[in-house]
Amino acid sequence: MSGTPKSLERLALEFQRLPGIGAKSAARLAYYLLRSPEDEAQRLARAIDESRAAVRRCSVCNTLTESDPCEICADPERDASLLCVVEEPGNLVAIEKTREYRGRYHVLWGALSPLRGVGPDEIDTAGLVRRVTSDVREVVIATNPNVEGEATALYLARRLKGTGVRVTRIAFGLPVGGDIEYADEVTMARSLENRREL
Amino acid sequence: MSGTPKSLERLALEFQRLPGIGAKSAARLAYYLLRSPEDEAQRLARAIDESRAAVRRCSVCNTLTESDPCEICADPERDASLLCVVEEPGNLVAIEKTREYRGRYHVLWGALSPLRGVGPDEIDTAGLVRRVTSDVREVVIATNPNVEGEATALYLARRLKGTGVRVTRIAFGLPVGGDIEYADEVTMARSLENRREL
Repeated sequence: MSGTPKSLERLALEFQRLPGIGAKSAARLAYYLLRSPEDEAQRLARAIDESRAAVRRCSVCNTLTESDPCEICADPERDASLLCVVEEPGNLVAIEKTREYRGRYHVLWGALSPLRGVGPDEIDTAGLVRRVTSDVREVVIATNPNVEGEATALYLARRLKGTGVRVTRIAFGLPVGGDIEYADEVTMARSLENRREL
Repeated sequence: MSGTPKSLERLALEFQRLPGIGAKSAARLAYYLLRSPEDEAQRLARAIDESRAAVRRCSVCNTLTESDPCEICADPERDASLLCVVEEPGNLVAIEKTREYRGRYHVLWGALSPLRGVGPDEIDTAGLVRRVTSDVREVVIATNPNVEGEATALYLARRLKGTGVRVTRIAFGLPVGGDIEYADEVTMARSLENRREL
């Protein structure tokens, strides 16, 4: 593009590979980093390198961690009889933020998606099944509330059926603080379907 | 945050410094880079370092460039009697994309903003005034269509009054392909005010 230095264009292209960053945002980020104090740009580059070097997957639950096993798997206070299954480490973090859950996790690294060629062997269903021993009382399936997440939940429920373990699914309904008027019909239908006695 | 490796948190914090990236997007980007192939993360880090090392400001027009003077200032085909004033190099690129403008540029690196303590000495108004010699026929002020950009345009127009050069401002009105129904009232008023004979 005329008027843009080559190395700046390359930087913008690298940003554009990131999720949720389009061509315009990528250009804005690249320009910003070139205007910012030298050390701010360097800090970002170093943080990328350092995190890539320091972070690996927990050999027990698959989440991203700097120590293996991860803090949660290594914590004797966490209830080992309760396993929460999530698609990504970011989902685990969202659940940890509630401070309500005291069990452990299993990160699948994805969800079943026949359209994108993701079958049970492409995500860590085998590792989960291996972890569901007699010590485990309940498996809470917290995959995303979309087609892939639902398919994964149903697959895992079927797969774990013979083990005698209790398999549950997180609840769907209206978001707290939301407005019924703005709820989509699928969410609203689920909210009615899952109504509870008061 | 519980469940997040320290170096991943640091990476997310660095992303959060960038414009338009909130806490959630920053976390998403950090997780993405840790999942991506090793070389993709490294390429981004290297692109940041390389662009910082290669890019400087053009000593003539202030835009970002790898050669000094920049390609546009060095191009004898570009009309040196026409100067387009922009706030940022990104604005220059947007104008170049039209392929309509064949003059040269002057990048102010900002706009006047008394509230943020940006006066005429904090942006390169002096450099512009120095460049407006008898060879310059017209200065097109293409600062942004907002309060700061307008204030800057008016300031520059006053400042250049004595020089005899023609000072113009880019046009405001309805965006092409837009819908009158969705136009804000200020844009609509400008659109009426600047109407032209057909």
